[in-house]
Amino acid sequence: MECKDLENDVCELKEMVKSQNKRIDELIKHIKEGCNQLEAKELKSSLFNMNPYLECLDPDILYHLNLDTRATNFPKVFGDVRFVCMGGTESRMEQFATFIMTEIGLKMNKAVRLTNIAAEAHRYSLFKVGPVLCASHGIGNPSISIVLHELLKIMHYAKCQKPVFFRMGTCGGIGIEPGTVVITSEALDGQLRAVYEVVIHTEPQLRPTVLSKDLIRELKSLTEPCTDGYDTIAGKTMCCNDFYESQSRMDGAFCDYKPDQRTEFLKRISMSGVVNMEMESTAFAAITHQACIPAAVVCVTILNRLEGDQIEASCERLKDWELRPQKLIARYIHKVLYGGDDTDSSNCDS
Amino acid sequence: MECKDLENDVCELKEMVKSQNKRIDELIKHIKEGCNQLEAKELKSSLFNMNPYLECLDPDILYHLNLDTRATNFPKVFGDVRFVCMGGTESRMEQFATFIMTEIGLKMNKAVRLTNIAAEAHRYSLFKVGPVLCASHGIGNPSISIVLHELLKIMHYAKCQKPVFFRMGTCGGIGIEPGTVVITSEALDGQLRAVYEVVIHTEPQLRPTVLSKDLIRELKSLTEPCTDGYDTIAGKTMCCNDFYESQSRMDGAFCDYKPDQRTEFLKRISMSGVVNMEMESTAFAAITHQACIPAAVVCVTILNRLEGDQIEASCERLKDWELRPQKLIARYIHKVLYGGDDTDSSNCDS
Repeated sequence: MECKDLENDVCELKEMVKSQNKRIDELIKHIKEGCNQLEAKELKSSLFNMNPYLECLDPDILYHLNLDTRATNFPKVFGDVRFVCMGGTESRMEQFATFIMTEIGLKMNKAVRLTNIAAEAHRYSLFKVGPVLCASHGIGNPSISIVLHELLKIMHYAKCQKPVFFRMGTCGGIGIEPGTVVITSEALDGQLRAVYEVVIHTEPQLRPTVLSKDLIRELKSLTEPCTDGYDTIAGKTMCCNDFYESQSRMDGAFCDYKPDQRTEFLKRISMSGVVNMEMESTAFAAITHQACIPAAVVCVTILNRLEGDQIEASCERLKDWELRPQKLIARYIHKVLYGGDDTDSSNCDS
Repeated sequence: MECKDLENDVCELKEMVKSQNKRIDELIKHIKEGCNQLEAKELKSSLFNMNPYLECLDPDILYHLNLDTRATNFPKVFGDVRFVCMGGTESRMEQFATFIMTEIGLKMNKAVRLTNIAAEAHRYSLFKVGPVLCASHGIGNPSISIVLHELLKIMHYAKCQKPVFFRMGTCGGIGIEPGTVVITSEALDGQLRAVYEVVIHTEPQLRPTVLSKDLIRELKSLTEPCTDGYDTIAGKTMCCNDFYESQSRMDGAFCDYKPDQRTEFLKRISMSGVVNMEMESTAFAAITHQACIPAAVVCVTILNRLEGDQIEASCERLKDWELRPQKLIARYIHKVLYGGDDTDSSNCDS
């Protein structure tokens, strides 16, 4: 190549750099204006049916999460939350927070570590990883109801836009292989009713436990039956108020029924479409539905109740199984954040 | 003194030593025989109405406490337990375990520290301090019911003799000064019924929530109204399945009632003798009663619900208040273990 040609190349490249600089300036201007427009447009809470008296509270003390609307700028701290993921234990949610950070490609400055925002209240754990808020809920409807009320208030005060809620957990399976992942299609109470009872002023109110059909379909489409190595199914979940007698176990401190009554009960609920039992889905479904929040319950079965009552799986196996609902929810979050091809789900609903 | 006298003294003393040696031998023989008799008399579980199918389990895995009847010698590890003390959070029960150790005069080898026996299960905490077992129970009836079933199985397998159970906690007071200690006289559900509902095979069963009147009287007699600096009263407790709506708070995520309806409700339950509200007493009372275990609920009020809904007391004040039920229970345990004068309780029931 001659000197002349090289000089031409240099000229062209300089022009290109100049033009690119201009383009970069335009883009920065566009982004800035966009952001300003977003800030200028005042965001509102996207939740429905919220308590009208919240406006009167200054501050509102979220006692069980150790938060206070006067001490914390909710829109600044929580305004970017788009996904709220809940699970039973503090340790599982800390592990999930670390997992989801990697899954959505976030990295943390080496000088800091994730911290449980609610640690001081000694009740629940709360970790924030970018747009994902991870909270523990303890055991049972009363326990999850408290943290749901306070999480909804966070979403409301922070003006989070259309958050999606997930409960992930472990459960007993009815007639399905341990390790199977169940996406709850309908949350039923111990009397097989799709309701959650709240007693107000001594009168019981029955509230519908509705879960998002779109979200169930979306989650189902993200399963990878050929490579996952386990099944993910949708089915009805029975939510019980205790672990032993209401679930017809023979290994509680008390047991007034006989083995054949237990078998008859489990077969009866299985015939009515119940594939798993746990202890929080009705409160979770009813409370999220009341605020018009799309929500899903994804649990892994850790035993088949038709074959026994005791949880005999090893620690390692339980840890591996517990990851399964997390992986599915992580795929959903990843897809929403970064897009992705639609998987052919034609085989999944068969 | 002359030599003769000294010689006589020596002779007498030698006789005395000889006679004492004989007495010591007799005592040792007596003690040994006594111990052998005790060992020979095989202890039995002192609990009633226990599940007859427990005998078929080998091992029985107490999943939520990370215990297993094959891996742990229950009579050896837990056989000396006489008091089971329960409270909501892990941190409170760890603090109570340390407190009760001092109160009953136990000391720990400097090379060891108290450990949460159930830590690996990530659900509840369990600390053992001599004859006192301290367990956390989480929030709500479903949560406490699980740990109660597993604690009863520990008592049963370990053949603990006539254990006494306590629940200590915080609560909302109705018309009483914050900081007041309430000993529950009767545990009522949200519909003001003295029952705990367990749904078995889709049918609700209502079980009576009976607490030991003797224990209430005994605890009441151990209060020291003149020096405590706060009141300790006995009264009815309303046990609710949620913290916000069922307790008629105006600061939940939802609120469909008006302030005057809230006031009317609180006044109505106050008129019927309810002095406090919490979330675990009905399951606690019904489950311990079913096993014929004397049990008591001792809670400190952290706000007066007639004056508000929010818990505004400082951390320091809350910590101080939380000690009050602990102190009363410690007095009871100390008295049972070491005896003590009967306090004149004539002024207490006035």
